[in-house]
Amino acid sequence: MRADGRRPDELRPLDIVPDFLELPHGCALFSQGKTRVLCAASIEEGVPRWMSGQGTGWVTAEYSLLPASTGDRTAREVRAGRQQGRTVEIQRLIGRALRIIVDFDALGERTLWLDCDVLQADGGTRCAAISGAYVAARRALDRFGLSRVLRDSIAAVSVGVLEDRPLLDLDYSEDSRADVDLNVVMTGDDRLVEVQATAERVPFSRERLDELLELAVGGIAQIRGLQLEAAEAPRA
Amino acid sequence: MRADGRRPDELRPLDIVPDFLELPHGCALFSQGKTRVLCAASIEEGVPRWMSGQGTGWVTAEYSLLPASTGDRTAREVRAGRQQGRTVEIQRLIGRALRIIVDFDALGERTLWLDCDVLQADGGTRCAAISGAYVAARRALDRFGLSRVLRDSIAAVSVGVLEDRPLLDLDYSEDSRADVDLNVVMTGDDRLVEVQATAERVPFSRERLDELLELAVGGIAQIRGLQLEAAEAPRA
Amino acid sequence: MRADGRRPDELRPLDIVPDFLELPHGCALFSQGKTRVLCAASIEEGVPRWMSGQGTGWVTAEYSLLPASTGDRTAREVRAGRQQGRTVEIQRLIGRALRIIVDFDALGERTLWLDCDVLQADGGTRCAAISGAYVAARRALDRFGLSRVLRDSIAAVSVGVLEDRPLLDLDYSEDSRADVDLNVVMTGDDRLVEVQATAERVPFSRERLDELLELAVGGIAQIRGLQLEAAEAPRA
Amino acid sequence: MRADGRRPDELRPLDIVPDFLELPHGCALFSQGKTRVLCAASIEEGVPRWMSGQGTGWVTAEYSLLPASTGDRTAREVRAGRQQGRTVEIQRLIGRALRIIVDFDALGERTLWLDCDVLQADGGTRCAAISGAYVAARRALDRFGLSRVLRDSIAAVSVGVLEDRPLLDLDYSEDSRADVDLNVVMTGDDRLVEVQATAERVPFSRERLDELLELAVGGIAQIRGLQLEAAEAPRA
Amino acid sequence: MRADGRRPDELRPLDIVPDFLELPHGCALFSQGKTRVLCAASIEEGVPRWMSGQGTGWVTAEYSLLPASTGDRTAREVRAGRQQGRTVEIQRLIGRALRIIVDFDALGERTLWLDCDVLQADGGTRCAAISGAYVAARRALDRFGLSRVLRDSIAAVSVGVLEDRPLLDLDYSEDSRADVDLNVVMTGDDRLVEVQATAERVPFSRERLDELLELAVGGIAQIRGLQLEAAEAPRA
Amino acid sequence: MRADGRRPDELRPLDIVPDFLELPHGCALFSQGKTRVLCAASIEEGVPRWMSGQGTGWVTAEYSLLPASTGDRTAREVRAGRQQGRTVEIQRLIGRALRIIVDFDALGERTLWLDCDVLQADGGTRCAAISGAYVAARRALDRFGLSRVLRDSIAAVSVGVLEDRPLLDLDYSEDSRADVDLNVVMTGDDRLVEVQATAERVPFSRERLDELLELAVGGIAQIRGLQLEAAEAPRA
Repeated sequence: MRADGRRPDELRPLDIVPDFLELPHGCALFSQGKTRVLCAASIEEGVPRWMSGQGTGWVTAEYSLLPASTGDRTAREVRAGRQQGRTVEIQRLIGRALRIIVDFDALGERTLWLDCDVLQADGGTRCAAISGAYVAARRALDRFGLSRVLRDSIAAVSVGVLEDRPLLDLDYSEDSRADVDLNVVMTGDDRLVEVQATAERVPFSRERLDELLELAVGGIAQIRGLQLEAAEAPRA
Repeated sequence: MRADGRRPDELRPLDIVPDFLELPHGCALFSQGKTRVLCAASIEEGVPRWMSGQGTGWVTAEYSLLPASTGDRTAREVRAGRQQGRTVEIQRLIGRALRIIVDFDALGERTLWLDCDVLQADGGTRCAAISGAYVAARRALDRFGLSRVLRDSIAAVSVGVLEDRPLLDLDYSEDSRADVDLNVVMTGDDRLVEVQATAERVPFSRERLDELLELAVGGIAQIRGLQLEAAEAPRA
Repeated sequence: MRADGRRPDELRPLDIVPDFLELPHGCALFSQGKTRVLCAASIEEGVPRWMSGQGTGWVTAEYSLLPASTGDRTAREVRAGRQQGRTVEIQRLIGRALRIIVDFDALGERTLWLDCDVLQADGGTRCAAISGAYVAARRALDRFGLSRVLRDSIAAVSVGVLEDRPLLDLDYSEDSRADVDLNVVMTGDDRLVEVQATAERVPFSRERLDELLELAVGGIAQIRGLQLEAAEAPRA
Repeated sequence: MRADGRRPDELRPLDIVPDFLELPHGCALFSQGKTRVLCAASIEEGVPRWMSGQGTGWVTAEYSLLPASTGDRTAREVRAGRQQGRTVEIQRLIGRALRIIVDFDALGERTLWLDCDVLQADGGTRCAAISGAYVAARRALDRFGLSRVLRDSIAAVSVGVLEDRPLLDLDYSEDSRADVDLNVVMTGDDRLVEVQATAERVPFSRERLDELLELAVGGIAQIRGLQLEAAEAPRA
Repeated sequence: MRADGRRPDELRPLDIVPDFLELPHGCALFSQGKTRVLCAASIEEGVPRWMSGQGTGWVTAEYSLLPASTGDRTAREVRAGRQQGRTVEIQRLIGRALRIIVDFDALGERTLWLDCDVLQADGGTRCAAISGAYVAARRALDRFGLSRVLRDSIAAVSVGVLEDRPLLDLDYSEDSRADVDLNVVMTGDDRLVEVQATAERVPFSRERLDELLELAVGGIAQIRGLQLEAAEAPRA
Repeated sequence: MRADGRRPDELRPLDIVPDFLELPHGCALFSQGKTRVLCAASIEEGVPRWMSGQGTGWVTAEYSLLPASTGDRTAREVRAGRQQGRTVEIQRLIGRALRIIVDFDALGERTLWLDCDVLQADGGTRCAAISGAYVAARRALDRFGLSRVLRDSIAAVSVGVLEDRPLLDLDYSEDSRADVDLNVVMTGDDRLVEVQATAERVPFSRERLDELLELAVGGIAQIRGLQLEAAEAPRA
């Protein structure tokens, strides 16, 4: 049993509020346990200069932690004038994940912005951002009659090894003590998009990697169900 | 009658959710019409170096718009590596407003951070940020047994002149067409802390300034009631 | 009586040297007591990209303290790579003030730059910058045959409350101990453009605000006389 | 057969020149085909402030492309004032990889810097940087009598899927057309440290991931042999 | 004859106003023709961290063009967040020049700041800045009883080749067409401190260099006379 | 005799490897004693916007020290977000030196980039960079059929005064103790392009300057021979 009473292969409670705000083109407040990420999708006419004139679109993601999201305060990145390495790495991951399901010809010369702002951070924020960004993107694209842009769904989950046991969906207290950390991103047809396994303290075997992937596949299946429900909820 | 059916001296609907998040030391989601500001207060041991060793504390505020908060997307400031002039001006205003009610000796050598992140922007965000920051500060200080730090309450409201009529609490569509814009900050004992009147299009007379101040005083009295209710709500 | 022997409603000695330099398009060295601001106006063909093609002009102001202007040296802002919040706030104020008297159609697709560099800082620099910028703008516009661009004159003065007494035109030693600080900008036809009242230490009443405005109106009338004389002096 | 005549499971020619330069504490010029990375290790007394006083060391890596390394010139990052996302991601990977084999107590309060400057870039630079940094670190640590700091060796290789075929050690022309890209980092005892699989164009199956890992394990075994030879070469 | 009627070996009219401002520790307004540089010297307790505790001082110079100093406006460097290469080069030259005459032990653990702000730029600003900084430094050091810090005087002048003729003290219209540009800095005992000769368009011979140095020596002798007069003028 | 056994007028051993790398357009590894500079030349279509449409080209140089090049590590400039003053000064010198021999009309609307990355720094890096950049430029221009762009050759050497003796080609241990430092750049027809003499500790006489120039002329003649040999070596 884990500190919060979960089984090793059990997700934290999920809650997805589509259209949490009215003004963004598309939006979802994605909560996984205490982790809460506000995902917004904006559709802008035009693409970056280096790709204009080709009739195809672009997808870009930005990720940020609100200063108080971590309990004890984290400094705002604009103060240092640049994003931290961790932020850069995460938003590149989110962007790559979403791009794999986008039909850029169907998008046309538009940019789809995915803003993932972490209101509360308790582990697994990058995966929650990916899962939530999918819902936000659906809400925005459907609203503008661009539903065909997304060719599949996409979701992500983190798994890890703590005290030699593989665990699904680590919260912060687990994650900060984990020996191995694995983030997995999968499409709706159960194929892999990203596998990011990192030995935080101890190198790991091929067998351990397999066990972790197994856990992740199960978790993603559950997340996918709730995502689709939120993505397809009637507009208020 | 105004576009949304309000009388000239009528506020937009107010809603204040204290403790909207669990991890920040203190927190309030402050909504005034569609304008929604997430205010968080964090208490950090220590003060900036230039004032350490004097036994007194410090208060500092930061303000930011989430990119999608404005409907059509606004670029994230970290991308340019610096905050815009408007942001700097607003967060200096929030900081000055809160400092006037703080007993720095009672705070001791601690820094009270006030983070005001605008989730949705529909006019009046700087005033909403001040009013919400007060509630967040109360929640954080009470939690750490520092209730005596705040000597009074503080609230703010914007008023303006549109088509020659003074109006209370302008929303974005009104604000963008206003001839004069006035932001007023007042303490709980009805004294003035900031009066910031700006001719956006047309210079104004002393009489017009008086009418606007009158409207603001009425609006602030109503906001103050809801603030106190939220600040004193029992902790969940 | 004040430390320098002035009455409460008395300005410091004013001196305005138009065309202090030959190369700038327009220029004035504006001295108010020891405060000395070099104001220069430059007229550039073209406007920022976001407003080009509309046939109308733009006005923008920049403000800076020379490092030694404050006696003990203040670091040059370029060293930190960004302007301080106070600087940003001041130059936004100068720009707004001047824009209110400009006929942008008469200016045409040109940018009027107002550079206010403080050679010596002894309080009231932002108001001196506004009053001096008006003279510099006049000199530059007249020289280029654009006299009709300015529809009125503009001047500013600071007032404050020290030891419970309202005082006109605070010098640095007064300003640093003031309880309330008010900057007022008015047009030549005695209407208000900016009213920026701030409680530095003690909130203030509506009556106190009225007293301060009264003092400011008197001071501005005197400044206006000297401004017009300098603006209209024959070109050497 | 591949464009350069290699079999699918064949590495490009490897060449490692330890002590290519005299002044760096430790150094290796690592060539894998046309990819050439100059890896230097520097040992500095002291650690970052946040970890000082604990008697343990720190390892940090930096990665950079020389402008002409890519044939057509790539702009120097200092011109933009910040590292690109790709650079940040790569140097974080190199640092994590090396840290997993370091005994921080044995290092003591010292910082081990690993500078990986790409002289010529023809694909696989991040893996070459890791493999070369190990040799440079060995040369520097041995020179300072700190041989016991490294508990194992470490090496990396990239594999990918091109036209539905898994290939070992992609060069740039292959990498730029690959559907899937996998970077693998392994210790000398054949355990995994990093598995970074990314669908560049097409999501992939669990089976495909297994095939790719198999190829990588074979490649790393060969690199390891040359690394050890270079690391243990007598000092000139 | 030159465009302004000067002989080839004739300086522009010189004017030095010591103590042009009251608040800086030391100050001189140095005018050479239309070129006008406001030089201020500030003495700060303490030295940069890397040299503290050795009982010796430090000298550092900063140079800046006011935006309107060049007639048509030059952008303020803080807008780009960094100084231009030309500025960096010039302020390094000024600092080196002044340091050569400073007795750092006599200065003690203090920093002597030399701020050279060009109010009007008509060629030769770097040399005028050096010559003026000497006067400002003298005024500041004498005021603080540190007269023995300067072991000699220092002055600078520019010479150049225009249409195959060596000319002393080029103004902007001459400088912008010159084939060779030479800046010379000399001490009061007629020794060289800096010789910076640059072929702007045409390489030059050893003989030409000698002719140019000859002209410079003559010009510096004249500047030195006025410098000493200004440096030793009684304090108002 | 000098510490390394050289005569006062003796260069360190020179070695120039043209085409050290295959991918850059042109390239030379230039070694002078332990100082090793990798010079690369890249030819890019187009020129900076401010000079486009005139049919002439542009030359620009960049200089950087690799962090470990100095033995004890030097921080990477991108970390501070800007180049140091010394770097800026050096790359401006390299650019000016090369431009004097370029026929910009023959170059056409192209930019010639000269990247000088110091792999190992043991004194005289700026001169080595100029001498090496010439070889790299030749290799690149010849390859693209643009041989007529260079009208002459160019080379540089440093000389200095140590313990009252003029010495040719100072290494770092000499340079760091020198009283005077002189960098000379000359064309192939023995004319001067740059003379940069600096009193590091002691001002110097005209006679001393002449002695130093004499030494430099002799050194440059030797460097020129090896440069031409490397520049004209057959392409592998």
